[in-house]
Amino acid sequence: MRITTVGLDADDTLWHNETIFRLTQDRFRNLMTDVAPAQVLDERLAAVEQRNLALYGYGVKGFTLSLIETAMELTGGEPSGRVIAGILEAGREMLVHPVEPLPGVEHALVELSRDYKLVLVTKGDLLHQEQKLAASGLGELFVGVEIVSEKDAATYAGAFARHGTGPAEAAMVGNSLRSDILPALQAGSFAAYIPYHVTWAHEVADPPTDHPRFTELAAIGDLPEWVRGLG
Amino acid sequence: MRITTVGLDADDTLWHNETIFRLTQDRFRNLMTDVAPAQVLDERLAAVEQRNLALYGYGVKGFTLSLIETAMELTGGEPSGRVIAGILEAGREMLVHPVEPLPGVEHALVELSRDYKLVLVTKGDLLHQEQKLAASGLGELFVGVEIVSEKDAATYAGAFARHGTGPAEAAMVGNSLRSDILPALQAGSFAAYIPYHVTWAHEVADPPTDHPRFTELAAIGDLPEWVRGLG
Repeated sequence: MRITTVGLDADDTLWHNETIFRLTQDRFRNLMTDVAPAQVLDERLAAVEQRNLALYGYGVKGFTLSLIETAMELTGGEPSGRVIAGILEAGREMLVHPVEPLPGVEHALVELSRDYKLVLVTKGDLLHQEQKLAASGLGELFVGVEIVSEKDAATYAGAFARHGTGPAEAAMVGNSLRSDILPALQAGSFAAYIPYHVTWAHEVADPPTDHPRFTELAAIGDLPEWVRGLG
Repeated sequence: MRITTVGLDADDTLWHNETIFRLTQDRFRNLMTDVAPAQVLDERLAAVEQRNLALYGYGVKGFTLSLIETAMELTGGEPSGRVIAGILEAGREMLVHPVEPLPGVEHALVELSRDYKLVLVTKGDLLHQEQKLAASGLGELFVGVEIVSEKDAATYAGAFARHGTGPAEAAMVGNSLRSDILPALQAGSFAAYIPYHVTWAHEVADPPTDHPRFTELAAIGDLPEWVRGLG
């Protein structure tokens, strides 16, 4: 057994993402402070997002539309122009938010890229993910970039076949048990879970602590050593 | 010289798209009939779309956000709830609009797929384009699907290298001179322009009628014969 390929999730693995969504949600609470208490807003927004997921997919534009829809629902269909303007503005700011690699990311990827093929596997808006990768300065380190609408075992099998030597010789790394870890294990790959300090409710799952190809790492700085140890 | 690979644009080449955007624009005019005349609406919307293109990219979600933004601008920042609700609803309906191949598409693709590798190359929302391809029933005919944020010469060189035998042995087919034809010719491929009855202003360009690898076809039914004639 030898590992040739390392797959990496992008949002909340290489750079902040969920934090930016949370900040926008705080801003939404401020805009709607006269309309409903924070808890009601959050619950209603979560329900609207869940309902829209199959239609809008993942990403900022769908989130912005879900915020507007939530504002409509909670104001009897008559949100103030100030609220709509604030939501549109918040959405635009999310799309131009500066992208800065998380601590230790660049060092770990440079080190890994010497001996392994690195493949980025991420969900979200196609254009926005490409823009974030370009802005991160990390693009040159990857031999392949897969921006996908859903992450399942077939996604990883395909990505590691196209850009590497197949899923059995690959390790996937990410902050979502549901999207990065469980389907990669199912595809036959190794998987390293690196938790981020907040997780979108949709992505929550239990860690497969007993799985022989699974590990949990405290930080991405620990990744090169773990990958090398796989043989 | 032999042609091994045929690239096809999706929207307005395989199925209706611009027509659906135009219908939504008609609906927007009806929603805003008390606010501004049709010509003012259309001009303002075109300006907002153009301004947002680099940020939102191509696709229904960005278009929906641009409609809301246009309504904001034309109502002094206070659109009625009815207008916002109508726009959100129109956007959702565009995303679930039934997908039916244009006349002659299925027959031409089945015939071409016997002798050539077919590759779909399309812009737009990742999830929505995947959904449309699945709904069209044409997915099985393609050896490769590339959903991209922008179509330039490098896009075609890459797509035809990955899924075929390179751009010199490929022909690209589509309804947009700017996105499908000119960059494919630049990449060294052949290109067949099949006009659709309406064209988004952003995509308008002059046909390269004197180019030796260019042709214009009246209908996709003429495509197999032209491709076979390339040798």
